[in-house]
Amino acid sequence: MAATSESTDTRQRLLESAGEVFAASGFEHATVREICERAGANIAAVNYHFGDKQGLYRAVFDYAASSKPLPPAAGGDPETRLRAAVRALMTCIFDRGQPAWYGRLMIRELAEPTDVLVSMVENVCRPLYEALQGVVSDLVGGKLSKPALGRAARSLLGQCVYYHHARAVLARLEPKLHFDAEEVDQHVEHIVTFTLGGLARLVGETGRT
Amino acid sequence: MAATSESTDTRQRLLESAGEVFAASGFEHATVREICERAGANIAAVNYHFGDKQGLYRAVFDYAASSKPLPPAAGGDPETRLRAAVRALMTCIFDRGQPAWYGRLMIRELAEPTDVLVSMVENVCRPLYEALQGVVSDLVGGKLSKPALGRAARSLLGQCVYYHHARAVLARLEPKLHFDAEEVDQHVEHIVTFTLGGLARLVGETGRT
Repeated sequence: MAATSESTDTRQRLLESAGEVFAASGFEHATVREICERAGANIAAVNYHFGDKQGLYRAVFDYAASSKPLPPAAGGDPETRLRAAVRALMTCIFDRGQPAWYGRLMIRELAEPTDVLVSMVENVCRPLYEALQGVVSDLVGGKLSKPALGRAARSLLGQCVYYHHARAVLARLEPKLHFDAEEVDQHVEHIVTFTLGGLARLVGETGRT
Repeated sequence: MAATSESTDTRQRLLESAGEVFAASGFEHATVREICERAGANIAAVNYHFGDKQGLYRAVFDYAASSKPLPPAAGGDPETRLRAAVRALMTCIFDRGQPAWYGRLMIRELAEPTDVLVSMVENVCRPLYEALQGVVSDLVGGKLSKPALGRAARSLLGQCVYYHHARAVLARLEPKLHFDAEEVDQHVEHIVTFTLGGLARLVGETGRT
């Protein structure tokens, strides 16, 4: 790396303060001046490290989303792949290593999408969504139509991402939940069991209750 | 009503322009001046109708959320109550009568909660969450612990509210979905079936696939 450790430091401080400011004010209202002041950096440092405000915004997402939910690998036992996929998603959602502002920033991006969302959909969401449909299809032995596979994959995704999107509501509804490793495990097993039962019912393998 | 129709008109225009501006800029950055300019109203009209910016913000939510998901009534066949609850939630989510800015405003509120969220949790989310746990408990004949009922109610809620929170992602992943009445019906039936199967599996009524 050609960067000196001082320059690496400045870059890191800029990413942290930009994350805070973008999460609080949104891309439109955030100013490079405020970000630099918080970071104790010169405005020129933003141009040097990130090109412009847009480049800085994009870099903030790459920096914060250190762990991304990788799509489950193809092949192998589908229940094992389902469990691995749910665990990967829930681990990302409850990632303690993520900056505190990341969740707010992501929710903001969903409310007012910029081209960061478009590239996140193509690079993260679509491969995951398609791989989950593959897992679901294997679990039901190919017995669901394409639209039904989509609905089933969304039922699975919805159960997981609820813990991300509704975290502010959930903190008030269930203040005793802390989502430590043991609680996350319980939730992973719950979602796997619920999903297996849901899929079985969809393809009519079980009687009605 | 004492209000003249001109005053009612002004109130309505203020609510619409406030919704747009709050959705675009957030509570903090939105200015009463901009809202009034868009509404073609005098700044004093905000004080007259809503007290202050905070009162206007609260009124915007009451105005936009014309249909709220009422908790399902107690008693009666639990599968019928489940279907009614899912239908009520999905109807709210795909409510064509809601202003276009409402979804963005709600997502913003989830990212940066104000006391509007707190009162929404207590008045809308908590009664619904508790009623859903009651329906789930009836569906499984009381065979789930309190924490397991909570997880199950969240699996049910998560499947529905995914269509609200992830709408920006979904519009890109599945551009052909339009959620007209027929598609909403398909999704309601899907979520009911998936949930019945999931619950049955949770209480071990069915064999493993």
